[in-house]
Amino acid sequence: MRAENVSDVVVVGGGLIGLVTAWRAAQRGLSVAVADPEPGGGAALVAAGMLAPVTEVRYGEQRLLELNLASALRYPQFVAELTQASGTDPGYRRCGTLAVALDADDRAELRDLHAFQQRLGLSAQWLTGRECRRLEPLLAPGVRGGLRVDGDHQVDPRRLVSALLCAAERAGVRVHRARVDRVTVTAGRATGVELAGGVRLSAGQVVLAAGCRSGTIGGLPPRVVPPVRPVKGQVLRLRGARGPAGPGALLGRTVRAVVRGGHLYLVPRENGELVVGATTQESGWDTSVTAGGVYELLRDARELLPAITELTLTETPVGLRPGSPDNAPLLGPTALPGLSLATGHYRNGVLLTPVTGDVMAQVLTGGGLPPEARAFTPGRFEGGDGDVVHGDAVHQGVPGNPVVV
Amino acid sequence: MRAENVSDVVVVGGGLIGLVTAWRAAQRGLSVAVADPEPGGGAALVAAGMLAPVTEVRYGEQRLLELNLASALRYPQFVAELTQASGTDPGYRRCGTLAVALDADDRAELRDLHAFQQRLGLSAQWLTGRECRRLEPLLAPGVRGGLRVDGDHQVDPRRLVSALLCAAERAGVRVHRARVDRVTVTAGRATGVELAGGVRLSAGQVVLAAGCRSGTIGGLPPRVVPPVRPVKGQVLRLRGARGPAGPGALLGRTVRAVVRGGHLYLVPRENGELVVGATTQESGWDTSVTAGGVYELLRDARELLPAITELTLTETPVGLRPGSPDNAPLLGPTALPGLSLATGHYRNGVLLTPVTGDVMAQVLTGGGLPPEARAFTPGRFEGGDGDVVHGDAVHQGVPGNPVVV
Repeated sequence: MRAENVSDVVVVGGGLIGLVTAWRAAQRGLSVAVADPEPGGGAALVAAGMLAPVTEVRYGEQRLLELNLASALRYPQFVAELTQASGTDPGYRRCGTLAVALDADDRAELRDLHAFQQRLGLSAQWLTGRECRRLEPLLAPGVRGGLRVDGDHQVDPRRLVSALLCAAERAGVRVHRARVDRVTVTAGRATGVELAGGVRLSAGQVVLAAGCRSGTIGGLPPRVVPPVRPVKGQVLRLRGARGPAGPGALLGRTVRAVVRGGHLYLVPRENGELVVGATTQESGWDTSVTAGGVYELLRDARELLPAITELTLTETPVGLRPGSPDNAPLLGPTALPGLSLATGHYRNGVLLTPVTGDVMAQVLTGGGLPPEARAFTPGRFEGGDGDVVHGDAVHQGVPGNPVVV
Repeated sequence: MRAENVSDVVVVGGGLIGLVTAWRAAQRGLSVAVADPEPGGGAALVAAGMLAPVTEVRYGEQRLLELNLASALRYPQFVAELTQASGTDPGYRRCGTLAVALDADDRAELRDLHAFQQRLGLSAQWLTGRECRRLEPLLAPGVRGGLRVDGDHQVDPRRLVSALLCAAERAGVRVHRARVDRVTVTAGRATGVELAGGVRLSAGQVVLAAGCRSGTIGGLPPRVVPPVRPVKGQVLRLRGARGPAGPGALLGRTVRAVVRGGHLYLVPRENGELVVGATTQESGWDTSVTAGGVYELLRDARELLPAITELTLTETPVGLRPGSPDNAPLLGPTALPGLSLATGHYRNGVLLTPVTGDVMAQVLTGGGLPPEARAFTPGRFEGGDGDVVHGDAVHQGVPGNPVVV
């Protein structure tokens, strides 16, 4: 018999990343506990859910692009499995993406992006302004050109996180609705966690998957504390007067835009909602809705799609992305035996959910980091006193290196 | 002994106007009931609370100006009495008002207003842009001039309506938390109301004071149904990071502005809040927060006071003003004996609260309409079949006349 609070794995954090890790580990036969004061919450409640590795590719992040593409490829199968396991449709929509430019400088930026995409062998088609408006008739006359990326889709993160919570619980994951105060370390090994209030959960392995809060959990040796920080994002949720989409929907696909150098996206949901995002603010733990943030989103969205003026502003949510020093996630074992990380997903948490689940399940069942995830080992930030042994690989710490290489 | 549901007066509507009517009538010795599903609610929860008869004077509304000035003059004594009766301070603040202009056309409009104020003998002082910024240092450099009106003050409508509800109940007013379906009419006389669910409240006199809903109450002969309509107003409530005002407050007084022909106001509260308003939309009963409305308020407020960018957007409330055909209230007896009106206050409900209470108390105690209120008799809209006798005066119906004369 297994004791009440003893399991093979305890996952700290019940957002997308924590839940997919728990679900996938439970599917592999491990007993799993998740601790989170509000499981099914977190940044997923704010994220727009773009699955856009091609449109969002950035210079210097080619390794991350590979992981993003791998995860995007896994989405259809992942969603099918999850829908069956949970009974919840996570709103995966193969709608494609159109990225547009509003002024000459924006157009030049998008042209550069297109050239970069072509060098990488990614599929994207250049359209004139007129062609953009033929595709999306309500776009402003000022749109000067754009990139059509039919392979960049979307999912509804609120439904996705609900489905994962349900699937995890159905797979036997025990969910503790409580805050984790600290990881317990015994004889140089992580052995579980202590919840607020003092309850202990013992486990053979601990996974830190608490998003931007992953660095605030107590009990850890300093060198394995993940270097994640909150990066504030404000979003608007708009809704048409007519309810569910159909002929009344303003957009047929996700539209991204470069507006005078800033970046904006408009994600139309099948339920008639339009998600507009997002600000990027380095302002610590502040989650206030600023007048300036809302203003800039409305200004740019209105310039791109004048018809939004008549929509109802239903929500102005704020989320905190888990930023990492190189904008890439930290996945896998740390220098502390028994402790793994699945955090630092920054802007890509929704997109990387399927691959993170697979990677972490392999790690937790003793298979080590799969090849596609080796560049994202926490070891890249664990420098200081020499080589660090974890899992199946030896890594040299590379403190201060801001780019995944 | 008086029966449970019988009183001298029943007031339909428990907003500012209904409650001040009830309170003042109860002070004169009448037994009073108020019916409202949410007493202490209504447009008062959205209004900014400017008491600005001079800054807001409009061409063709001189009679209304007189009533507005009379009510503004009564405010200090009214607030003192209400504070004592309720134990609640309604946040009356003698801060003065500055009305500013941003471009040359705005400046010309404000110059015309100043000339009109001077012809009417109202006190307002012209300031250069530099003088405006000396008074309010955070105003945008683009401010081109303004009018300083030291006699235009503010009150906090949320606290005001709470205080009135408390004062009315302490004065013995019975508050029924229910919707009124219809006025009961017996032998050509209003005799009470019927609540949703069927409960009847009998009364010698009925007062319709249900704001923009005053025209929707059933049971009335068509000619006495008040011609009020909802006029939607959206407002923003902002708050600084530092909490209660003091050195951190952005403004020392109410600032109104003409911004490229549009009108905006910023009302700083002593608790650190800044109320920004308001849109004016003829869109029926719709109370949705539109993206366009929020955008325009933020755009204009930011142009006037750039520092608002950093403030937190805490609320985006929507209210429905009770508009009347001539923008002036309907006060006093109607052609239906036993039925009086106190509605149609449009933009001036908060300002007109004290004088409305006094006028209605006199009407309900048999004194007839006092001279300052005679221009606002409902009779001016009751045309159709000749002269109508009500109260102490004979009025000729003037259907279609849009101006109080």
